[in-house]
Amino acid sequence: MTLVGGTERARDFVREDGVLAFVDVGERPLESGVLLPRVRLAYETWGELNADASNAVLVEHALTGDTHLTRGRVREHAPEIERARAEAPGWCEGLVGPGRVIDTNKYFVVCINMLGGCYGSTGPATPAPSSVDPENKPWGSRFPFVTIRDAVRAEAAVADALGIQAWRLVVGGSMGGARALEWAVTFPERVQACGVVASCAASSAEQIAWGQAQNLALRQDPAFNGGDYYDSDFPTAGLGLARRIAHITYRSAAELQTRFSRDPQPGESILGVAAGTRGRYKVESYLDHQASKLADRFDANAYLTLNEALMSHDVARGRGSPEEALARTTCDWLVVAVDSDRLYFPSESDALCAALPVPVPRHTIHSDAGHDGFLIEDAQLGELVRATVLS
Amino acid sequence: MTLVGGTERARDFVREDGVLAFVDVGERPLESGVLLPRVRLAYETWGELNADASNAVLVEHALTGDTHLTRGRVREHAPEIERARAEAPGWCEGLVGPGRVIDTNKYFVVCINMLGGCYGSTGPATPAPSSVDPENKPWGSRFPFVTIRDAVRAEAAVADALGIQAWRLVVGGSMGGARALEWAVTFPERVQACGVVASCAASSAEQIAWGQAQNLALRQDPAFNGGDYYDSDFPTAGLGLARRIAHITYRSAAELQTRFSRDPQPGESILGVAAGTRGRYKVESYLDHQASKLADRFDANAYLTLNEALMSHDVARGRGSPEEALARTTCDWLVVAVDSDRLYFPSESDALCAALPVPVPRHTIHSDAGHDGFLIEDAQLGELVRATVLS
Repeated sequence: MTLVGGTERARDFVREDGVLAFVDVGERPLESGVLLPRVRLAYETWGELNADASNAVLVEHALTGDTHLTRGRVREHAPEIERARAEAPGWCEGLVGPGRVIDTNKYFVVCINMLGGCYGSTGPATPAPSSVDPENKPWGSRFPFVTIRDAVRAEAAVADALGIQAWRLVVGGSMGGARALEWAVTFPERVQACGVVASCAASSAEQIAWGQAQNLALRQDPAFNGGDYYDSDFPTAGLGLARRIAHITYRSAAELQTRFSRDPQPGESILGVAAGTRGRYKVESYLDHQASKLADRFDANAYLTLNEALMSHDVARGRGSPEEALARTTCDWLVVAVDSDRLYFPSESDALCAALPVPVPRHTIHSDAGHDGFLIEDAQLGELVRATVLS
Repeated sequence: MTLVGGTERARDFVREDGVLAFVDVGERPLESGVLLPRVRLAYETWGELNADASNAVLVEHALTGDTHLTRGRVREHAPEIERARAEAPGWCEGLVGPGRVIDTNKYFVVCINMLGGCYGSTGPATPAPSSVDPENKPWGSRFPFVTIRDAVRAEAAVADALGIQAWRLVVGGSMGGARALEWAVTFPERVQACGVVASCAASSAEQIAWGQAQNLALRQDPAFNGGDYYDSDFPTAGLGLARRIAHITYRSAAELQTRFSRDPQPGESILGVAAGTRGRYKVESYLDHQASKLADRFDANAYLTLNEALMSHDVARGRGSPEEALARTTCDWLVVAVDSDRLYFPSESDALCAALPVPVPRHTIHSDAGHDGFLIEDAQLGELVRATVLS
């Protein structure tokens, strides 16, 4: 295990918050039996690990999330680009920061880019090691199938490197919730509290069905080229379609109707002359925007790899029934559903609670927005975290 | 207006039921302002039109439906292939036939392939007339944008040709319901009763969003070639993906979970070595099957044309508010929702009822299957038809 870059500074107590750092975790054996060589995981931290390393909180990102939870700060005289990155707003600002529920003055907060991702960790866009490819071209189609469990095991090596024996809390929403739960089951002695938000114990038929549609949208883009597109055009159309499909499932029909109804995009006519020439509805323009934003910031192979991992999510795989799998857990729990979620239904959170070895209530975030409500209603989520696992 | 083929025989009282027949309805002016020349609509009939033409029932098919509602019968000595086609089971067997709710011994039942479709009516796969293309290649990308209203106006010409001044009942589900409703609003004097099943007064943001995803799935297939693929490979992968997306929205999450859970397809392993090499989940295999079945029987351009028409559905377009648009209707009503429908929500049926000029209750089909429940639970639908509009 090797710490590289910013983290070495962090361990020397030069406080750098919200700056991407790396740990080399070596060769990783995967559930499939494949050995993935030379794995590096990227992460960011905020705050300071206390003397007995008892104040560490791991926040797990969702499918297309990155490690930048919240604004950070850099050392004096840091290069401007590093400062700008650190000081940019993060996706979890409402919960993480000085004085927030996950208080960076009190907790040492960590966010790790998932194995297979594209925000710094080893993934399909990473140059393959010379043992795999003497030319060190990106892994591309050769990158192995990774599960949520594989990812969590690799994250444990980051915890080792940071000197964290046990997390005060591991918490995440959606795919982040799947990883948080897998942490609690795979490493019960390393998780004191676990927050599973808008997630489930095992991916459902519904989630797998939508996952397949997204994967096919990507794969069927001719630019995808089986996954080997790094020296050519990127499959942005396929990635954009995958995102559209996903995004609809992340919102609620009622919210889409309220926001967009069937209004045409201003200045466009929805009665075309030929089918391909009509103007757009507002909701189409909105989805075009979501598609384009993601295609500009995400790698298609990473999307596929993480999506496959999420489809594979099943804490009970090889561990008997869900009840048997969860019997080994020893942590405190926060299980939260969004009432309007139509991708991770509240009933799945109920099923998780029912399978836990201790009585745990299912909490609810009220939102009209659907699954994304877990990100939007951060005040509600914060209050739940404060009242339960960080009380 | 010219009757061609089997229909001339039908009018001569040679009873041929369930046999495809055609009406040439000439040049059709479309809502977009485009003139579509040389339009032919395909239809099938069952039973006999009575002397005062008061027993005609129009059943409108859904997005990928055809005209074959139920088994028919052909004249003696008809060619074997014609006999086999006529005697094949139809998609509306439970409701239409001798002694059924829509009794072909009592009613003259008609089903018309929608303008732009691929079951006999003029559509993108039809050879373009010489005025458009001296070589008479298929319309392909040149086929105009068609609305539900355009389709219904063309269907009125079929009614004219068949000598039907007013329908005893126009009924349909999903896109068929949209056409039934448009009939009642566009031709109030020609519709005595209207059945709108699992449908709505205007396509919602949700329906448009899923429609866009399906259209893009098709368009982004390189074989689609902008719609001009008839002399080359068909865009079966794109059409298959469009169908997968649609099919998920036609079922319910609960039904998928009950039938498939996250089980692997027998003999396949869901833990792959690379992301592209794993085996399938059962639900993926199911969706593959749905995709392949549709790609084998449907034209991609027709899918796009009808899907666009459905997205355009809005009985109030150019007619004021929904209440104002519906104020002109004079028929009896049957409005039915499927309780588990997550594409055409029961609340949309409620909104339609609320906008009608007379008090109409919203009826409910109970089904776990989602939108497709309107096809599956034909006994419930039949009872509702019998108790209301055909009582």
